[in-house]
Amino acid sequence: MQRYFVTNQQPADTVELPADISHHLVDVMRAKVGAKIEIVCADHQAYLATVISLQPAMVRVDQPLNKSVEMPVTVTIACGLPKTKEKPQLIVQKGTELGATRIVFFDCQRSISHWTSPRREKKLARLQKIANGAAEQSHRTVQPRVVYRDSWQDVLTDFPTDTAVVAWEESAKQGEVSRLQATLGKLKAGERLTAFFGPEGGLTSAEINAMNDQGVVSVGLGPRILRTETAPLYFLSAVSYQTELNG
Amino acid sequence: MQRYFVTNQQPADTVELPADISHHLVDVMRAKVGAKIEIVCADHQAYLATVISLQPAMVRVDQPLNKSVEMPVTVTIACGLPKTKEKPQLIVQKGTELGATRIVFFDCQRSISHWTSPRREKKLARLQKIANGAAEQSHRTVQPRVVYRDSWQDVLTDFPTDTAVVAWEESAKQGEVSRLQATLGKLKAGERLTAFFGPEGGLTSAEINAMNDQGVVSVGLGPRILRTETAPLYFLSAVSYQTELNG
Repeated sequence: MQRYFVTNQQPADTVELPADISHHLVDVMRAKVGAKIEIVCADHQAYLATVISLQPAMVRVDQPLNKSVEMPVTVTIACGLPKTKEKPQLIVQKGTELGATRIVFFDCQRSISHWTSPRREKKLARLQKIANGAAEQSHRTVQPRVVYRDSWQDVLTDFPTDTAVVAWEESAKQGEVSRLQATLGKLKAGERLTAFFGPEGGLTSAEINAMNDQGVVSVGLGPRILRTETAPLYFLSAVSYQTELNG
Repeated sequence: MQRYFVTNQQPADTVELPADISHHLVDVMRAKVGAKIEIVCADHQAYLATVISLQPAMVRVDQPLNKSVEMPVTVTIACGLPKTKEKPQLIVQKGTELGATRIVFFDCQRSISHWTSPRREKKLARLQKIANGAAEQSHRTVQPRVVYRDSWQDVLTDFPTDTAVVAWEESAKQGEVSRLQATLGKLKAGERLTAFFGPEGGLTSAEINAMNDQGVVSVGLGPRILRTETAPLYFLSAVSYQTELNG
């Protein structure tokens, strides 16, 4: 069923849909009066609703949908700026499907491209649109925020967290295999988790050491070398597997 | 370090590299005499090697590399034919990085595109090339085979397996959350695992029921709706997390 995010804090009995949603519902999806859709209000509550008019598009709110679709922990994915424009798009689309709460792109020592204004704001707006679409399609009740920060330090300062990890392939080389599981196994519902990932060339040892000094734990993601855009997807799947499918 | 797959069953002291690898190493990567590379022989053993001549490109084999990079179980990913050509490419590239042993595309009731000869052979050759490149880049010792079958029954017949599962989003709706973990937790090293995934519209109830009758277990992949190309990536990450990072 089609799902849309609306800005209403809480639904009234009827909700008039904003112009962009109305266009998608009526012109693209060709919905008729009587069609059922799902809306998510700004308080992250989803509702079943019935289309009652098309010009303007308006729905009657039928009942709340109480299936829980969000991770029990909030997960911030922080990625060193990748080189190409396709990789951030893939990270945002798939990261949203896989349950991320926030997706940060940060500049780091081996980042080849740098996001400067005003191009940066355009990029972020485009990526936010991808996140919003993916949130609708994967039937989430949260649209992850896509943001930029100048450094990993700014990520930690601006988004306080309970647990922070950094994906580091050398961990595997040192025979460390279980630190990810040990870390995820300790998470409690409602906690905040932040995970850092390097750009194509990886984070430098200096960056990893400085992160470790700030309490960020190095974790391996298995013995194979994952591309910069694949590592966050592995990580989010692992968090879901550990926290959502655990009996 | 650059890794290449060669067809030699076992390395002699020196190996002459085939023309395509030679071109990549010398013309693209601009390697010089003395450069270190890794080669993987047909028996899936990796070796450290040193470039000793460029025309023709030839290496001296220095020592075997004994780091284990393959999953302890062999995993066949079987995907209902997706609609677009980008999705199989993404599944093959990321599925290879994430450790799949074999990737099958099969025709099913809701597949919109059908792969007919001779276009099919061209598609498979292109996808195999993507798998081979991803295997090099992720430093695997196995290049997953990419194949096509007319039906899910043919997949089970042609590729015998110890455990078979099918990703089914209704599992989550029925409150089933832990069957994936129960199934993966029982796997033993050396066993074969096959996982089926639907195309964009999903598998039909009839297909799911018939699979269940054949012993294929329905498993949920968490509460969010994953796109057809995202579900296999979640699954492979979960298999790795369960079988490779488990202390």
